[in-house]
Amino acid sequence: MSTKIIAPTAALSWENIQEAHRRIKPRIHRTPILRSATLDALAGAELFFKCDNLQKTGSFKIRGATNAIFSLSAAEASRGIVTHSSGNHAAAISCAAAWRGVPAWIVMPRNAPSVKCKAVEAYGGRITFCEAKVSARTETAARIQAETGAVMIHPYDDDRIIAGQATAAKELLEDAGELDAILSPVSGGGLLSGTSLSAKYMRPAVRVYGCEPAKADDAYRSLQTGTLQSLESSDTIADGLRASLAPRTFAILRELLSGVLLVTEEEIIRAMELIWERLKVITEPSSAIVLAPLLKPGAANSLIPGTTKPRVGLILSGGNVDLRTLPF
Amino acid sequence: MSTKIIAPTAALSWENIQEAHRRIKPRIHRTPILRSATLDALAGAELFFKCDNLQKTGSFKIRGATNAIFSLSAAEASRGIVTHSSGNHAAAISCAAAWRGVPAWIVMPRNAPSVKCKAVEAYGGRITFCEAKVSARTETAARIQAETGAVMIHPYDDDRIIAGQATAAKELLEDAGELDAILSPVSGGGLLSGTSLSAKYMRPAVRVYGCEPAKADDAYRSLQTGTLQSLESSDTIADGLRASLAPRTFAILRELLSGVLLVTEEEIIRAMELIWERLKVITEPSSAIVLAPLLKPGAANSLIPGTTKPRVGLILSGGNVDLRTLPF
Repeated sequence: MSTKIIAPTAALSWENIQEAHRRIKPRIHRTPILRSATLDALAGAELFFKCDNLQKTGSFKIRGATNAIFSLSAAEASRGIVTHSSGNHAAAISCAAAWRGVPAWIVMPRNAPSVKCKAVEAYGGRITFCEAKVSARTETAARIQAETGAVMIHPYDDDRIIAGQATAAKELLEDAGELDAILSPVSGGGLLSGTSLSAKYMRPAVRVYGCEPAKADDAYRSLQTGTLQSLESSDTIADGLRASLAPRTFAILRELLSGVLLVTEEEIIRAMELIWERLKVITEPSSAIVLAPLLKPGAANSLIPGTTKPRVGLILSGGNVDLRTLPF
Repeated sequence: MSTKIIAPTAALSWENIQEAHRRIKPRIHRTPILRSATLDALAGAELFFKCDNLQKTGSFKIRGATNAIFSLSAAEASRGIVTHSSGNHAAAISCAAAWRGVPAWIVMPRNAPSVKCKAVEAYGGRITFCEAKVSARTETAARIQAETGAVMIHPYDDDRIIAGQATAAKELLEDAGELDAILSPVSGGGLLSGTSLSAKYMRPAVRVYGCEPAKADDAYRSLQTGTLQSLESSDTIADGLRASLAPRTFAILRELLSGVLLVTEEEIIRAMELIWERLKVITEPSSAIVLAPLLKPGAANSLIPGTTKPRVGLILSGGNVDLRTLPF
């Protein structure tokens, strides 16, 4: 299935990103950047892990959710929020809505990890389950919006969300010094679009790559073909990467991205185990994926030609994983 | 079994600790301080987790090991290093000896976790296994020292080690702002002595508590009775806390410590799971123990009387745990 692009490149300015950062800073953690000599040696690169797995709600999603919800007028916010998500955006919207004191209705696929559903409930989000298909998510959310009058906050096809997610790379670039490249996971493309925009505005020479499971390679195919490809379903272990790009994120990535790197399920699990063992931080598969491409011999140098030991930022996007069902 | 104290309070000055910090700073991580609103609410306190589980070699032990090994003259260092350890000091000595380019002979008890033995080997340490008793460790290390002529670096009964370990609390007090108390694990007492000394020199009003498994309560009994109690063996899940105080650490703790808090094995496991779930960092049982006392209702207020929501620093000492045999 493919869709014609309607929207041109979103008009997100550097000022929009700075404003988002000012708005959310008092509410979120400035997450640390961690390093490992062993992982550097394995990758043949200097790696800078931006740990948004240690962020409030356990993922970067609180950045966009907080920016979006605190951008609303009092009248808008009072109607409550509705969204759909496989998990981390759901928890983030529930948390940010609770901070603002308004209700949140959340549509989640039936196969979302129970740890993510519990987090939504703990923050007071009201869950409606739907079939594990992108189309079922959007239809159910539209129905709830019609019933409640709540404000829809799309998980990634929304400038306020993208501006919020862009603050992760902004902090990385502020704190890590010069970088040659940044790797980020790609699903709906909110984080990757934001990362690309921050890089463009702060250090245009930095190459930005998306990392995607070969089992859910819609972003790769979209950028290869030039038309937006969608993915009806996938059972990749990277449960946070089962969504597809939207017009807004596709437009930004077409313009700015250096490429999408595909990896196998086994490569994701190996990267996850290495991050747990070496960085000692809990990282979900959807997040550990950023290390996977660099474990292939010579990968770092081929991604950034002309460098011998490139400096690479990796955005660890989330740490919400069921500790009782680890894949290793 | 009890031993009469020979040594008076060790003469470790604030200058010794500052010098240690200057010596080791270029080689170690300045580890982050993490926070969790959920854990704050559970504990009825503001918690500041100093994450030395994210330190090089996965524990604070690299601080003391680096300070001790880089304090040696070239002639001393060239003889190599010998030590005994249940694991984290072993890895730290192996790593710091490799940085200095000298050999390290390590005596480890047979029941040390395999993940810790592998780390020692990876850093090039030469392991000799011994019975899982404190006396067997010291005897085996003395024999190897006699055979090789290597310099003995005791895991905690050594001023250079204590000064190095003191830098964890020094960084915590520099970075977290005012604190009412600091909780640290206690085994041989190197970290807890160093913590007490940094608190004494930087913020004398801060109360320092040691956290100890009830199953290995020798530090508690030593301080209660005023005579050094030793522990021949223990099967506590906190494998890093099976050693006993030494004259040097006992003398410092008798003078400076506010108390030792005992917790059960179940309380340690519960604390460990909460830290993994909420802080998203991998913490070994010996390290997670610091949260356990605060999970008892009203504990925070009874430890720091006269406060309503005390500010408490917790030193997460290590993250070396076998990911395939988790206790939850």
